[in-house]
Amino acid sequence: MEKKIITISREFGSGGRTVGRMVAEKLGIPFYDKELVDQVALESGFAPKFVEEHGEHSPGSSLFSYAFAPQGVPGVMNGLSTADFLWNIQCNVILQLADKGPCVIVGRNADYILKDRQDALHVFVFADTPFRADRIVRLYGESEKAPEARLLEKDKRRRVNYQHYTGRTWGMSQNYNLSLDTGVLGIEQCVDIITNAVIQSREA
Amino acid sequence: MEKKIITISREFGSGGRTVGRMVAEKLGIPFYDKELVDQVALESGFAPKFVEEHGEHSPGSSLFSYAFAPQGVPGVMNGLSTADFLWNIQCNVILQLADKGPCVIVGRNADYILKDRQDALHVFVFADTPFRADRIVRLYGESEKAPEARLLEKDKRRRVNYQHYTGRTWGMSQNYNLSLDTGVLGIEQCVDIITNAVIQSREA
Repeated sequence: MEKKIITISREFGSGGRTVGRMVAEKLGIPFYDKELVDQVALESGFAPKFVEEHGEHSPGSSLFSYAFAPQGVPGVMNGLSTADFLWNIQCNVILQLADKGPCVIVGRNADYILKDRQDALHVFVFADTPFRADRIVRLYGESEKAPEARLLEKDKRRRVNYQHYTGRTWGMSQNYNLSLDTGVLGIEQCVDIITNAVIQSREA
Repeated sequence: MEKKIITISREFGSGGRTVGRMVAEKLGIPFYDKELVDQVALESGFAPKFVEEHGEHSPGSSLFSYAFAPQGVPGVMNGLSTADFLWNIQCNVILQLADKGPCVIVGRNADYILKDRQDALHVFVFADTPFRADRIVRLYGESEKAPEARLLEKDKRRRVNYQHYTGRTWGMSQNYNLSLDTGVLGIEQCVDIITNAVIQSREA
């Protein structure tokens, strides 16, 4: 079955987003990352920055999160927590983007949301802590927190969010078709492996 | 760092052993599967068939398992359960095989036992249930149990054994450098991905 939709789930700092962008460029298909955030923002009434920060991180249900209802759209959340409201819109946007045609989608539990699409290839990208710590300091600079602590915190929030909305364990090989260690394989080789898998699926 | 040792962990019926054998042939290096069992049998005093059936399956500690002490080697188990005794010998044999030079080792928690070797590439091979059920019926024939039940049982025993001796979760992407879905990618492509990773590691 030809694989047209590629979802990339990734550990923070592993280079998963870069891998996704390069795969999209090589295959000449759209890359949804910022666009996805903008679309969810548009449909939810939240600011793009809020969507970006909370779309993969909200713990799922907390009374506190009700406080963030978007201004000017009273009642639009239908009693849902901010997190659940965002999740619903995110699901719809991802399903719609996949329906539009071939693309690469990074993060936002897209592997789960598109798990029933036979034309989707699901990829998990990760690396060991030293590789990722070094990479985030190079890319995003130092901060008050040690890079290792930043990795732990961000991955934990992604893992909790994933577990809450999918009932699956984040990072289990069986959730994906390919899991790739960028620290050992390098970004370029990961891009080649994914691109080849898509090309070979056309010939199968 | 050049990768010389390749460990293949696999779901039952996924074709992981075939992948391992083909990788070894392509790279022209030894493939340890039956040889490993024979060596453990020799060092433990157990029959090869017993080692093959229990080396990846024993639950770790059970009073019952003490009953299987090899005949003619009284006291040799030093108070260890059969499972723990086998585990210790298996660890030693795997460490020795890896010291001998480049090779492919299938199963037996070798990914964990060799986790500190920088020259080891760890691979997990899996596939969805229909693909594996079809494959085991073709390879091993029908049995009284439904193939799906055979898969569940065998994988559960491997998972429990792995968890017991390593403290890690069997199948988590981060335990390996590569996780490959043979059902989607096909055996040949998985062989190519692993072989290429080894060849590219020589140039890195």
